Amino acid sequence: MPTTAREFHLVARPQGEPVETDFALVERTLPDPGPGEVLIRNLVLSVDPYMRGKMAGVRTYTDPYELNAPMEGGAVGVVEASGDPDLPVGTTVLHSAGWRSHALLPAARTRPVDTSGPLGPSVYLGALGMPGLTAYVGLLHKAGLREGDTVFVSGAAGAVGGMVGQLARLYGAGRVVGSAGSPEKVAYLVDELGFDAAFDYRSGPVRRQLAEAAPDGIDVYFDNVGGEHLEAAIWCANDFARFALCGSISGYNATSAPPAPRNLFQIVTKRLTLRGFIVSDDPHLARDFHRDVAPAVADGRIKVRETVVDGLENTPEAFISMLRGGNTGKMVVRVSD
Amino acid sequence: MPTTAREFHLVARPQGEPVETDFALVERTLPDPGPGEVLIRNLVLSVDPYMRGKMAGVRTYTDPYELNAPMEGGAVGVVEASGDPDLPVGTTVLHSAGWRSHALLPAARTRPVDTSGPLGPSVYLGALGMPGLTAYVGLLHKAGLREGDTVFVSGAAGAVGGMVGQLARLYGAGRVVGSAGSPEKVAYLVDELGFDAAFDYRSGPVRRQLAEAAPDGIDVYFDNVGGEHLEAAIWCANDFARFALCGSISGYNATSAPPAPRNLFQIVTKRLTLRGFIVSDDPHLARDFHRDVAPAVADGRIKVRETVVDGLENTPEAFISMLRGGNTGKMVVRVSD
Repeated sequence: MPTTAREFHLVARPQGEPVETDFALVERTLPDPGPGEVLIRNLVLSVDPYMRGKMAGVRTYTDPYELNAPMEGGAVGVVEASGDPDLPVGTTVLHSAGWRSHALLPAARTRPVDTSGPLGPSVYLGALGMPGLTAYVGLLHKAGLREGDTVFVSGAAGAVGGMVGQLARLYGAGRVVGSAGSPEKVAYLVDELGFDAAFDYRSGPVRRQLAEAAPDGIDVYFDNVGGEHLEAAIWCANDFARFALCGSISGYNATSAPPAPRNLFQIVTKRLTLRGFIVSDDPHLARDFHRDVAPAVADGRIKVRETVVDGLENTPEAFISMLRGGNTGKMVVRVSD
Repeated sequence: MPTTAREFHLVARPQGEPVETDFALVERTLPDPGPGEVLIRNLVLSVDPYMRGKMAGVRTYTDPYELNAPMEGGAVGVVEASGDPDLPVGTTVLHSAGWRSHALLPAARTRPVDTSGPLGPSVYLGALGMPGLTAYVGLLHKAGLREGDTVFVSGAAGAVGGMVGQLARLYGAGRVVGSAGSPEKVAYLVDELGFDAAFDYRSGPVRRQLAEAAPDGIDVYFDNVGGEHLEAAIWCANDFARFALCGSISGYNATSAPPAPRNLFQIVTKRLTLRGFIVSDDPHLARDFHRDVAPAVADGRIKVRETVVDGLENTPEAFISMLRGGNTGKMVVRVSD
């Protein structure tokens, strides 16, 4: 029986901050799955900062979104009709055909996930998904966290940042410092996630606040923000500090080149290492990640917070809000129950 | 018999470009060497970009020069009187008490060098000295040169840069590209040192010229310059390119913060690694360096060019000229024969 799917298309490339009219909700009739295919009803969708880059229409490490075609993105859904005996109806799967109510996919492009635990399916979009893996790869494999390190992470109340801070704790950091964009988020970092110190970057110069929060300097910086944060981290870096550069959300909506750190010569004098990375380059680390981190999420040593927006039709709003910092923890969209 | 030494003191911290009145030539009477000491008559002195940093009065990776005290710097001299039986009169030694005619030093702070070959003692200040070791450590150990890499080096006609290009050639780079500050230097790089391509950064935008010289992008960048060069190298970098950041001479005389690269987000999207380094952190590599590089210098596979200024009294002028790019190859000051 054919299914009517609703899906968001990108219909205009955003100039500056995206607006809702850059997206259009389109209906499409999906046929029954053929052999080896599954029809999925989505439960929950991911909106992530990297999507802003794919809207710009420029090839970087990944192809841009096409105009007038369905958006892609992480999603978890339930198999409603199956042409693959290994994925029976009712199986919960993770896949990348997000921003839509239903998806018809080759079974090979989905991965079954276990939703028997206390955490909902959205955990596979956050703490145990791409953001969690990003934190793990960047902190442990790119920045090379060592016991006793002082770790600074920007965007610390976001999906990646919150995991960076908690993993740093779990793996023996000496001091964990985060920045976020409101007093409520700062309290969340310290009171709920166990950061040693945190500050609101909107309330004063990052450099001064970081120097106060990390008076002995920082050994590791996990950068989600770029710009002033990166400059401040260089100022406060100890000799031989290692920076994992993950993102630069401060510039994603910028229409002109963002301000750049003026102190790059300190990379030489302090012998810093800055490594840019993309999580999809290291798929072999996903197994280690799940082995090491899933138990800590399950037993509560790692806390999971989400900001949930209800309704597929609100996906663009959720995305735009996330870029403004409207989320604490992972921002997800609940599509169906 | 006491010796009258002439030595340069730093008497004012330079503001912007150093001027000759920042330095004063002072006479001092040196006593005969005591036990374990040697009196050295200097033959040749080094002037190096790093010295500008030490004049600024700010502690970085090394202490600043003190005011009204003798300058330090690489030098090669001959033992004229000895209190150490292992260093008889006539021994040629490398040491760090430069900017002066004579030095009285503990023998342990000197290192005998072999001057029986065709190259003069100054080779230990350049190709086989700190600049050569800097090139070797940065290119092979920090940037991790691989066979077939396209290598870009800025300040390529300088003491370090010329070695970087030649070592890249020797170690199997696929293409070697350099920038320098005059048409004559560009010709020297291509015609004498065997660079595949070179350009005059004063004759047009670095980014455009680099893109033309390295049409398939660069895999390694050895940065001596910073600023516009670093930005251009990021623009032209291939995915997973490695940058060894050695210096930033474009900013050393700057009185305000220099322009900074506006494209640092490409460090993420291209997964670049930027490593700042200081050659003195890796003294254990000096043995490998001499074993690997000295034969290539001796048999002419690595060419040695120097710009020689005569007379101790002209040391400040040589230093100021070097910062302006007045040298091709290593800038040295000949003090005595």
